[in-house]
Amino acid sequence: MRLADLSEQSRVSIATIKYYLREGLLPPGRLVNATQAEYDESHLRRLRLVRAMIQVGRMSVAAVREVLVQVDDESLGRTTRLGAALWALPRATEAAPDEAEQDGHGQDEAGQDDPATAAARRQISDLIARLGWADVAAIGPLSPVYRELVATVASLQRLGYPLDADDLAPYARLMEQTAVHDLDRMERLRTSVEQVEEAVASAVLFDPVLLGLRGLAQQQEAARRYGL
Amino acid sequence: MRLADLSEQSRVSIATIKYYLREGLLPPGRLVNATQAEYDESHLRRLRLVRAMIQVGRMSVAAVREVLVQVDDESLGRTTRLGAALWALPRATEAAPDEAEQDGHGQDEAGQDDPATAAARRQISDLIARLGWADVAAIGPLSPVYRELVATVASLQRLGYPLDADDLAPYARLMEQTAVHDLDRMERLRTSVEQVEEAVASAVLFDPVLLGLRGLAQQQEAARRYGL
Repeated sequence: MRLADLSEQSRVSIATIKYYLREGLLPPGRLVNATQAEYDESHLRRLRLVRAMIQVGRMSVAAVREVLVQVDDESLGRTTRLGAALWALPRATEAAPDEAEQDGHGQDEAGQDDPATAAARRQISDLIARLGWADVAAIGPLSPVYRELVATVASLQRLGYPLDADDLAPYARLMEQTAVHDLDRMERLRTSVEQVEEAVASAVLFDPVLLGLRGLAQQQEAARRYGL
Repeated sequence: MRLADLSEQSRVSIATIKYYLREGLLPPGRLVNATQAEYDESHLRRLRLVRAMIQVGRMSVAAVREVLVQVDDESLGRTTRLGAALWALPRATEAAPDEAEQDGHGQDEAGQDDPATAAARRQISDLIARLGWADVAAIGPLSPVYRELVATVASLQRLGYPLDADDLAPYARLMEQTAVHDLDRMERLRTSVEQVEEAVASAVLFDPVLLGLRGLAQQQEAARRYGL
């Protein structure tokens, strides 16, 4: 299909598509003559993924590019590509700034080894041992999502809401089950690049859906226990 | 305790505490003389909750005030207060802006009854019927969290990632179990105001923790299936 058709089918404007092409977020089409290129289903799929990462995941162009490098690296094989792509994804778990930081009063010192961070690191490491997440234990502390979780737990502790492995374990087990559903959904797709794309899209897109479902479930459970 | 002690114990600056007092987010202390007021544990707890809503929940002062009105309305009884407070909480599930909206090209018209929204509404209503969430079904479409979930699902559909009740049901059942844990945690607390405060804090604070755990669980499950 031509650029105009790609725009129509994806409902992404031609200007935006050209911008993604320039930024390397979308592979170039196949040139059919000096001024026209031909695009196919893979462009449509990629465009959908890029929009998901930017609009829902609120990711920067640079972060999207980094994830796509992993998605497209055929030398890696599905397994490693999947891991690397999920790894490169920034998460919406960014720690809240401390009051000290926010007000600039400097009551807390922010540093790798402040007491709250050290405690959070121990609790997450306890949790992972208890769950038997051996692979996360092996590589975990290096991964962005692990570091962000430590920062979030540390930040809640500083706010006066400490969480330990006992508090976290039941939730972690439920998230283990959501991860099984995530990967089952992914495995229904045919090609390896589609699977990796789907895993990335689902990681980014499902966060707001899960939180919405959690909110509804809380309302339902509260009404069930205590009446409307 | 005096204002200075409240500030020290909460690690919130005096200026910020005075601001919260002026804005009605913190009840006034008991006046001991013309210029000094006495604060107690309830102020410390409330301060912790306000910081959680503002720093982690990124809520506006007006939104915090609205939630606190529900938390404090003793005339309602725990049940209704809890429901009303959870109801008033804005959620991090805000729908992504459409490309049309973002680019100002107007390819999509955003409106109550565009096809994606109508489809999302049907899917959420199917889902709720299937789960047997009778209370949510009764009042649901009026609640902010319900409307936001519809908007999110509609927005994913427009992005080319349709979700139906089959896709959503397993996740909703897992969120049902997280809601049970949430309310069990809450019920361990003694007083009704503490319980309602805890429910609000947990609803706000646990979102980033859950998403962090989901990310770790995805890495673990991917590594388990496909190797490191």
